[in-house]
Amino acid sequence: MTTAVNTPRDTEEGRPRLEHEIRKGEVTVPLPDEDGPRLFVIGRIRTPWTRREDCPRQGWPDGLDCRIELDERWSPALEGITAYDQLEILYWLDRARRDLVRQNLKHDGERYFGTFALRSPQRPNPIGTSVVPLISVEGNVLTVRGLDCLDDTPLLDIKPFRGEFTPKAAPK
Amino acid sequence: MTTAVNTPRDTEEGRPRLEHEIRKGEVTVPLPDEDGPRLFVIGRIRTPWTRREDCPRQGWPDGLDCRIELDERWSPALEGITAYDQLEILYWLDRARRDLVRQNLKHDGERYFGTFALRSPQRPNPIGTSVVPLISVEGNVLTVRGLDCLDDTPLLDIKPFRGEFTPKAAPK
Repeated sequence: MTTAVNTPRDTEEGRPRLEHEIRKGEVTVPLPDEDGPRLFVIGRIRTPWTRREDCPRQGWPDGLDCRIELDERWSPALEGITAYDQLEILYWLDRARRDLVRQNLKHDGERYFGTFALRSPQRPNPIGTSVVPLISVEGNVLTVRGLDCLDDTPLLDIKPFRGEFTPKAAPK
Repeated sequence: MTTAVNTPRDTEEGRPRLEHEIRKGEVTVPLPDEDGPRLFVIGRIRTPWTRREDCPRQGWPDGLDCRIELDERWSPALEGITAYDQLEILYWLDRARRDLVRQNLKHDGERYFGTFALRSPQRPNPIGTSVVPLISVEGNVLTVRGLDCLDDTPLLDIKPFRGEFTPKAAPK
């Protein structure tokens, strides 16, 4: 498959891609012809935000409650998860464009950064990662606080968080 | 595509899957028929470890130096990255099995955990995430300290790290 510069293909999810017009000084590259491994979408994240401009810039613990709806198939994999106060959530930013290597973050036409020097959704593999407090688990639905993604975002993974500054999490 | 229980397909990478025999009490589920979005492999991670049993359990700043070899295509996306002391690295654990939902972590036949209560490589989307110090950048090669993955692991993403406990990183 060949993808032309500035015309990223539609997502596999069937959702409309959010418009991201190339701004002056931004740089794209042709996407590779060959694709890598495939992901499984294992659930959906429900948040209050349906427009990108409403999303918080980054998810942190003082945000709003969000629901993680895990597909039933994977429910047994939640066993023991309530032992953790904080979870790392991975999700697919399915409306991002993947060919930008240099971005004008502030729309000011002045400050440019390479994509890997930004946490912008626009990146070759638009995987979001956030560490958020776990509020509750009911069946296959988790409530967490403070995610930053759009409503209906595809869920990729749930991991217990053990950070540099967090002693290895112990069961409550 | 249908994948039978206990016989996960080969990886798309063509590398041999590491053996993970199902242990007593471990549980698998059939993998979904339909796959989700495709990833781009954007480079390779070179580490000292060629056997899973030699890998550290988790990557942290006191580990060994590792090389991140970014494909030339994406090199412009490194602009400005030296402003950050710590990077979040995402990679594809291409030899993991993806159908385990309940795992016996210690091989002791006694303690079981759901996959999402573990940071084990065996998970539906085997994406590793580590936060590591950036040591140096030369062209399209980054040296970082303390990754936990096997040599030749496919690279997925590089993000600046701005953690809960880290003030927003400022340019050096």
